Amino acid sequence: MSNQMKQIVLASRPDGAPSPENFRLETADIPTAGEGEILVEVSHMSLDPYMRGRMDDAKSYAAPVPIGGKMEGGSVGRVLASNSPAFAEGDHVFGPFGWATHSTADARLCRKLDPAQAPVTTALGVLGMPGFTGWWGFNEYGRPKAGETLAVAAATGPVGSMVGQLAKAKGLRAVGIAGGADKCAMATDMFGFDACVDHRAHGDFKSLRGAMKDACPDGIDIYFENVGGPVLEAALSLMNTHGRIPVCGMIAWYNAGGLGADAGGQSLTAPKLWRTILVNFLSVNGFIISNHWNRFPDFVNEVAPMLKDGRVKYKEDITEGLENAPEAFMGLLTGANQGKAIVKVN
Amino acid sequence: MSNQMKQIVLASRPDGAPSPENFRLETADIPTAGEGEILVEVSHMSLDPYMRGRMDDAKSYAAPVPIGGKMEGGSVGRVLASNSPAFAEGDHVFGPFGWATHSTADARLCRKLDPAQAPVTTALGVLGMPGFTGWWGFNEYGRPKAGETLAVAAATGPVGSMVGQLAKAKGLRAVGIAGGADKCAMATDMFGFDACVDHRAHGDFKSLRGAMKDACPDGIDIYFENVGGPVLEAALSLMNTHGRIPVCGMIAWYNAGGLGADAGGQSLTAPKLWRTILVNFLSVNGFIISNHWNRFPDFVNEVAPMLKDGRVKYKEDITEGLENAPEAFMGLLTGANQGKAIVKVN
Repeated sequence: MSNQMKQIVLASRPDGAPSPENFRLETADIPTAGEGEILVEVSHMSLDPYMRGRMDDAKSYAAPVPIGGKMEGGSVGRVLASNSPAFAEGDHVFGPFGWATHSTADARLCRKLDPAQAPVTTALGVLGMPGFTGWWGFNEYGRPKAGETLAVAAATGPVGSMVGQLAKAKGLRAVGIAGGADKCAMATDMFGFDACVDHRAHGDFKSLRGAMKDACPDGIDIYFENVGGPVLEAALSLMNTHGRIPVCGMIAWYNAGGLGADAGGQSLTAPKLWRTILVNFLSVNGFIISNHWNRFPDFVNEVAPMLKDGRVKYKEDITEGLENAPEAFMGLLTGANQGKAIVKVN
Repeated sequence: MSNQMKQIVLASRPDGAPSPENFRLETADIPTAGEGEILVEVSHMSLDPYMRGRMDDAKSYAAPVPIGGKMEGGSVGRVLASNSPAFAEGDHVFGPFGWATHSTADARLCRKLDPAQAPVTTALGVLGMPGFTGWWGFNEYGRPKAGETLAVAAATGPVGSMVGQLAKAKGLRAVGIAGGADKCAMATDMFGFDACVDHRAHGDFKSLRGAMKDACPDGIDIYFENVGGPVLEAALSLMNTHGRIPVCGMIAWYNAGGLGADAGGQSLTAPKLWRTILVNFLSVNGFIISNHWNRFPDFVNEVAPMLKDGRVKYKEDITEGLENAPEAFMGLLTGANQGKAIVKVN
């Protein structure tokens, strides 16, 4: 084995959508595991929308990646060397290894994986942070009741597909919104959504809203917010009283830059938005899943069996090669991927 | 006693701020109580910001007042005649008697008052709907914890002053926002707020926000939203993570007209607003107190003793004469009143 590894660092901060020159592929010596650390050969790394936020230096719940710093992210791999009693060489592991072929990490931040429970790549998606995000937000803030209607955008993504399938399992009508006929077919045929609206087929807000209204004849009780933009605004206008809106992301606005930038196109003024919240008695809850890791075992205990017996399905979109991660990531932000975006790096 | 009564009806719908021609004073025969009804001579009627909403025909939680219909509202008075076993002639009563000197009402919608417990006018304010709104929203959605900071606008109003005093009683820092030096002095001297920001002394948003920031050195944990407008936007920018925003009104925007009208001046775009909710893990809850009347006895049991022993103070602003109700109501919408707006009609 070579003593060299590859990693991708943040070369510059993007102005709007990221472009290739914001990333730089570097070669470095494979590090040595320090006290309490493990050294891992990464097999697959995750690409997630939140990473766009780390590229800005705006105030958020996490510190930005410094210029020249390794892009952050979760990955799975095998332990090459361990200075922790919790891991042995050869163990499958999930951890914060970043955009790199090899990495050390504090063993306490890593989680051992059992390949017999589910394929290890599911730790990046359906049985990992995105799936957990959907499960927690849907149950904790969505407070679902059978017979209600749930709507979720990015319906074929790892969060949206989890939310939709949990909604169906609890007796709700599940309506997805996705970009393109292929994704909509996947939402209904593979993930079991009752209907899916193709937002790319609706060039204007009125048409989009009309299609969503048709798909939600009884209005929307839970709008699981992970996208923002016109879909959010259309959903808001269709909310039933006492509706719930868990808010965990707004990918449509990420490229708008930091706090306060306006991506253009949104039609909802602040007074209208607040009035909608008020007159419909809506509950809007911003959340980030990393505040709730203590519930992760409950999630896995509930969903892993559903994965095994086929009640919960998942879709992965795997890109080969670390050097292709920036392009795959840029595609993720524009919806070019189908399913959980993963990069195979070793 | 004359068999004639006076009432004020909605003559036309306002376009923006109400004006005198939107109201019409009429004379009519005093009605007779039907089966299960009581006839009441009103002594005091309440003026509340929500009445502005009833003058529009926009979709809201209550039907609009029809053109030519009596303006709605709660009042206190004495029973003149009763066709209900629950009331006797001479009883003090609170009920939905509208803008009128006399009215019949379904006895089941009325509540008997005990003048020995508190002056009957308190049923319109501190021990009535506004006080209950503050108590419920603060406790249920505000989830107060000692040591936190609460901010509330219209701090000397019946909702704001209740919220501030409850916050002080629970060990929070209470910061008010009010219009004018007199109201700010009342907030701190009479209601015990730790600080009060005079929003009229700050012509621009930056100055207002700076003053609020100075008054909330540890940020805001609970922003009780009953006003909207620039104060809301400044408060949003000062929210701590996991902050809570009970939303029960937005008087600053009421005159903007129906859903979607933009009163101008607000600086917060939709993306910025949603991003603020997300990155601070805020909980925003729209509510209307009439959905929660079942908890009204709990409120009275808790707050009436606080009124009696002086722990909770209140301020009333009484206008004499039904014919002066429109002017008093227009003043209420622009903050001309000091304390709970009440009209003495008999």
